[in-house]
Amino acid sequence: MAKGNCEFQKLQSGYLFPEIQKRASLFRKANLDIPLIDLGIGDATRPIAPTILQAMIQATEEMGKVETFRGYGPSEGYPFLQEAICQHDYTKLPISSDEIFISDGTKNDIANFQEIFASSCKVALQDPTYPVYIDSSVMGGRAGSILENGSYEKILYLPCTKENQFCPPLPTEHADIIYLCSPNNPTGEALSKTELEKWVAYALREKAIILFDGAYEAFITDKDIPHSIYEIPGADTVAVEFRSFSKTAGFTGLRGSYVVVPKKLFLDDGLSVHAMWKRRVQTKYGGTSYPIQRGMEAIYSPQGQKETKAILHDYLQSAFRLKEKLTSLGLEVFGGTNAPYIWVQAPSEKTSWEFFDHLLHKCHIISIPGKGFGPSGEGYVRFSALAKKDVIDNALIAFHSM
Amino acid sequence: MAKGNCEFQKLQSGYLFPEIQKRASLFRKANLDIPLIDLGIGDATRPIAPTILQAMIQATEEMGKVETFRGYGPSEGYPFLQEAICQHDYTKLPISSDEIFISDGTKNDIANFQEIFASSCKVALQDPTYPVYIDSSVMGGRAGSILENGSYEKILYLPCTKENQFCPPLPTEHADIIYLCSPNNPTGEALSKTELEKWVAYALREKAIILFDGAYEAFITDKDIPHSIYEIPGADTVAVEFRSFSKTAGFTGLRGSYVVVPKKLFLDDGLSVHAMWKRRVQTKYGGTSYPIQRGMEAIYSPQGQKETKAILHDYLQSAFRLKEKLTSLGLEVFGGTNAPYIWVQAPSEKTSWEFFDHLLHKCHIISIPGKGFGPSGEGYVRFSALAKKDVIDNALIAFHSM
Repeated sequence: MAKGNCEFQKLQSGYLFPEIQKRASLFRKANLDIPLIDLGIGDATRPIAPTILQAMIQATEEMGKVETFRGYGPSEGYPFLQEAICQHDYTKLPISSDEIFISDGTKNDIANFQEIFASSCKVALQDPTYPVYIDSSVMGGRAGSILENGSYEKILYLPCTKENQFCPPLPTEHADIIYLCSPNNPTGEALSKTELEKWVAYALREKAIILFDGAYEAFITDKDIPHSIYEIPGADTVAVEFRSFSKTAGFTGLRGSYVVVPKKLFLDDGLSVHAMWKRRVQTKYGGTSYPIQRGMEAIYSPQGQKETKAILHDYLQSAFRLKEKLTSLGLEVFGGTNAPYIWVQAPSEKTSWEFFDHLLHKCHIISIPGKGFGPSGEGYVRFSALAKKDVIDNALIAFHSM
Repeated sequence: MAKGNCEFQKLQSGYLFPEIQKRASLFRKANLDIPLIDLGIGDATRPIAPTILQAMIQATEEMGKVETFRGYGPSEGYPFLQEAICQHDYTKLPISSDEIFISDGTKNDIANFQEIFASSCKVALQDPTYPVYIDSSVMGGRAGSILENGSYEKILYLPCTKENQFCPPLPTEHADIIYLCSPNNPTGEALSKTELEKWVAYALREKAIILFDGAYEAFITDKDIPHSIYEIPGADTVAVEFRSFSKTAGFTGLRGSYVVVPKKLFLDDGLSVHAMWKRRVQTKYGGTSYPIQRGMEAIYSPQGQKETKAILHDYLQSAFRLKEKLTSLGLEVFGGTNAPYIWVQAPSEKTSWEFFDHLLHKCHIISIPGKGFGPSGEGYVRFSALAKKDVIDNALIAFHSM
């Protein structure tokens, strides 16, 4: 009988969002007249900028004429977009346009990237962080069994706490693959140049590969936070960088992202990471939709930049207001300056879920319990500043009932 | 040092298309004034139907307004599309809309589907067939080493030759995963109801899983050829079905497809294939672009059906003309009735590459050597009828120089 991939059975049932839904539903049933304020899910709410839309509509119309119709595009994306990205996001950095692979989501890319590594590779990651790194490590057989505290035996967890300013400590043992998310989801805290230098040095010394998730790069406002890991000399020999247009330009429903895989990056036995990823992409990916690629290109036009930056400013303004309010209420608040997420310590030593329940019942606000992002997330909750403006307004009032 | 997935090294360097390019380039350099007629690549050339375009443009415009903007959609696709597919493509068949997963390419789906199986699973496939089945089996560690004749040691090749009317024989040993492509690429020949019944019975007996690739389903014209494997009783307990809008509606550049994974399908230890695939999709896929999903939905509207069927008729008309001409020139010709591919036996016992060269130099026509699709493709070439009409017209004249 056909056998299944037994690693799938080691996945924790995706309980976080269903459990949040369940508790919110119970509250709604018992309090029919009270509307809930959702600061949970990190999804874009502002409409797509007009310049991007216009480019997409034009590209769609091209598909309807025999002279401009396009069939299969390159699996790795159209050169017009690779070049636009290279010129704008990697000016003066050692990256060339053919090292950029266009795709339809950082989630897909970062999960699929596991595939080019041996299953024996040791994975290290920030704790707390984006759960897809763990889940894809489990599916790829690199996590081992789940322990009683909810962590996986083979994964190296790097605790990010307020004591270390949410900067992951270097592992005390050898790691092969290191996930770094900066600005990090859920803490909203970003790694400084000094911190990243430390990581590049570690990777060079240990011959490890850094998978650098820069999905929230566009939110960086602090001058000393690198926008790309390639700002650190030598990083192009140890790091792959992932970028998303999901939050940058509201592409969560349109789908658009890219991966930078430098040609100077090698695995054991001289295997080229670039060549392996290219082969993976050509065999298992049919390319990103043409109108979407034209939409991504338009983000880089002067008008596209102006429009998308205004939207980002708007989100960050919401983050600032949330942060200010929560601080004024005496809470310990992190993130929100270089990311649209606010990371809040639960008062009175409450657990994540206790604080979640408290916020739900007292303020009618939905948050995300920090424990859902890793063991070190216990005692925190995450708020998203990506909600609509009126939702933020309501939240600012509702917090007073805490 | 981080180790790579060593299975990647067992991949045959994707030599087929580069080699075709190389030979065509050499010809072009030596014969600057002679234009080449490309019947090689199987890519759509007709523009997208107006009804589909209109739906996509409307959906794109929705993304620009705050009231109609959509962020993350369900990873498995929007219910409006799942339901449209279910109602039109699975009328009276035992498939429900939540068994349909929307995606952005059959190549991606069928390659990624390998992931839910144990690496020990034995793979069987038609020979010749679509090369992605082999390549993804290699990457997943299910192919073993490559042998001198270009085949892989662990794969069960099921020769499809004119002697067996291109119907794959049942394997003489146990197989766990069986790829069936019908109508098959490259032969253009489809499996009858009787043939499919034989395969469903085999899978039931051997507790194997059939991965049924119906990418060319829309081209079926013969009454006794099933459009879906679920027309065979019991198939919903043994088969996954893949469908593409690439050729059906010219989506090769827009990207759109779906997979049917029945809930009655189980692996060893009672593992639900549906649950495993759903988890895979939710963890590693962010959903298909919303405007593209609206475009796919529009294919199923009465006007969308009328417009896309007219395009399919057009392609099949080209296939008919090619077939007629080649037959009149005394060649043995297959396919072309239920698929846009013509499968032609090389005359005078030429090899695939010899006939390719002959066609290139005598007729200035680019074909695809059959050997590129598997060992049993030797001695054949494939022509695609998806080329533009004037290209087909030119080919019909050029064939006379053979």
